[in-house]
Amino acid sequence: MNRKEFFKTSLFGAAAVAAAPSLLASCCNAEKKPDTGAVLNISFQTGKALGESYAEKMDYCESLGVTGFEPGGWDLVNDFDAISKAIEGRNLKISAICAGFEGFILADDPVQKEAFDTSMRRIVEAAGAIGSTGVIMVPAFSRQEPCKPNNQETYDYLCNELHELGEFAVKCGTTVILEPLNRRECFYLRLVPAAAAICRDAKSEGVKCMGDFWHMQEETSDYAALISARDYLQHIHIASRANRCNPGEDGDVDNYVEGFRALKEMGYDKYISLECGSIGDPAVTTPAAVELIRNQWEQA
Amino acid sequence: MNRKEFFKTSLFGAAAVAAAPSLLASCCNAEKKPDTGAVLNISFQTGKALGESYAEKMDYCESLGVTGFEPGGWDLVNDFDAISKAIEGRNLKISAICAGFEGFILADDPVQKEAFDTSMRRIVEAAGAIGSTGVIMVPAFSRQEPCKPNNQETYDYLCNELHELGEFAVKCGTTVILEPLNRRECFYLRLVPAAAAICRDAKSEGVKCMGDFWHMQEETSDYAALISARDYLQHIHIASRANRCNPGEDGDVDNYVEGFRALKEMGYDKYISLECGSIGDPAVTTPAAVELIRNQWEQA
Repeated sequence: MNRKEFFKTSLFGAAAVAAAPSLLASCCNAEKKPDTGAVLNISFQTGKALGESYAEKMDYCESLGVTGFEPGGWDLVNDFDAISKAIEGRNLKISAICAGFEGFILADDPVQKEAFDTSMRRIVEAAGAIGSTGVIMVPAFSRQEPCKPNNQETYDYLCNELHELGEFAVKCGTTVILEPLNRRECFYLRLVPAAAAICRDAKSEGVKCMGDFWHMQEETSDYAALISARDYLQHIHIASRANRCNPGEDGDVDNYVEGFRALKEMGYDKYISLECGSIGDPAVTTPAAVELIRNQWEQA
Repeated sequence: MNRKEFFKTSLFGAAAVAAAPSLLASCCNAEKKPDTGAVLNISFQTGKALGESYAEKMDYCESLGVTGFEPGGWDLVNDFDAISKAIEGRNLKISAICAGFEGFILADDPVQKEAFDTSMRRIVEAAGAIGSTGVIMVPAFSRQEPCKPNNQETYDYLCNELHELGEFAVKCGTTVILEPLNRRECFYLRLVPAAAAICRDAKSEGVKCMGDFWHMQEETSDYAALISARDYLQHIHIASRANRCNPGEDGDVDNYVEGFRALKEMGYDKYISLECGSIGDPAVTTPAAVELIRNQWEQA
């Protein structure tokens, strides 16, 4: 079996297996589902879109019916004019902005905290100006030191700091989006329900959260995790579930139906953005991933 | 309006309001629901059951159709024969055992850790012998010091320690049940989904978790929180949602329908146990609480 046949076969298998839990899990599946306003908007990060220039990358997105483009925060600030010009007049919008800031919000070192405040606000301003849904942030990567201690005082501090940042984002016409990561990358924030609780406690319309189907290996339930964030869910990252490649490249485990069911029930209309590599030929696996996402969304 | 009329009115109001979210939230509610095997088993803690002796308290439970009795761990060990004799031949079983151990599992002081290990295992043995569903535990109350630092190393340590304890509990014919509390009482473990993730990571059938509707003020969604614990949910505590009194004493906020909907969907057949005081006359508010729970279970 050559590589192309392998992917065709495994994708077909994944789609067939994916249908089963959807049929079992909900008593409503045989019924007509209510129209919640949910829309499937697929987005690519800069590196996922094939092509050299922004124009080529965006052509590629459009060729696959992908309607969102997720640049890094650093690129957004530095290439603001180029990105703005390239996206003009397309059936494509900037989805979220992926991090790109310096320092971190829970830094115990004032220099690192100041670096975060300054660089994050610059990215938030650019995100607002280009019409992005929000800027993704992590409170503290596990490798970032010195970090404030993990206690109630730091939690309250984080909520206060996020409140200020969220209000700034609202003024800029955008949001900040907390991303839980797996334990190796960010012990501090691993679960979508924990991020949702922070959003609630930050008391700002500008503080949102997201789920990443790769990092959601931390969750006991895709469905429950996303439902818990119903009022705050602003973005989704997706990848294959064993090796963080294109959805479908890991075969049957690449099942997003329960998570998509949550998104459809809550009327999610933001983006599902591919943040992943590929072990195969991206020219094959990337369009196949888009197809798999569309199929599983339909089944959910 | 006298006190009795007040409770009658507020309970009626609560029931009416409670019906609305149930009708709105699920597309299935108008349909016949599948039989998941869910059963409503109400339980009283020792202090909730009116009466002086265990026999009187158990008579009181039976008079209200309450089928579970939740003693404290200390009482269980000390009054084992009296409790065993009193419950014999009744339509009543021991539900969970409420804590009662000394020290704590995350103690950094070996003396406190040893006190936990010894006292907890004694309670687990008694719990198994009397047929209890499990012994409730908190990894570390916020006031307990010195506590291991809140990081990945401690998380792994906790999972290993719980694995050993869970396997011991299985041998005794029971379980240990992690209870998330609110941030004032236990910053370390506040969310049911976080407790469920620990249960998964502890890799023992003897490690379970629970939700307490009072502490679940920490959750963004009762429904999602409980669904996340589907595979591990072993007990429920219930109280009024503003002042931790009998359900119904806080009026319309005492709505458990979304949580009960999760329990019914997952086929929950363990106990829902009242852990609360009363600002009213318990002889009135306790039977009213039982009635409210039955009504809301029916609506869910």
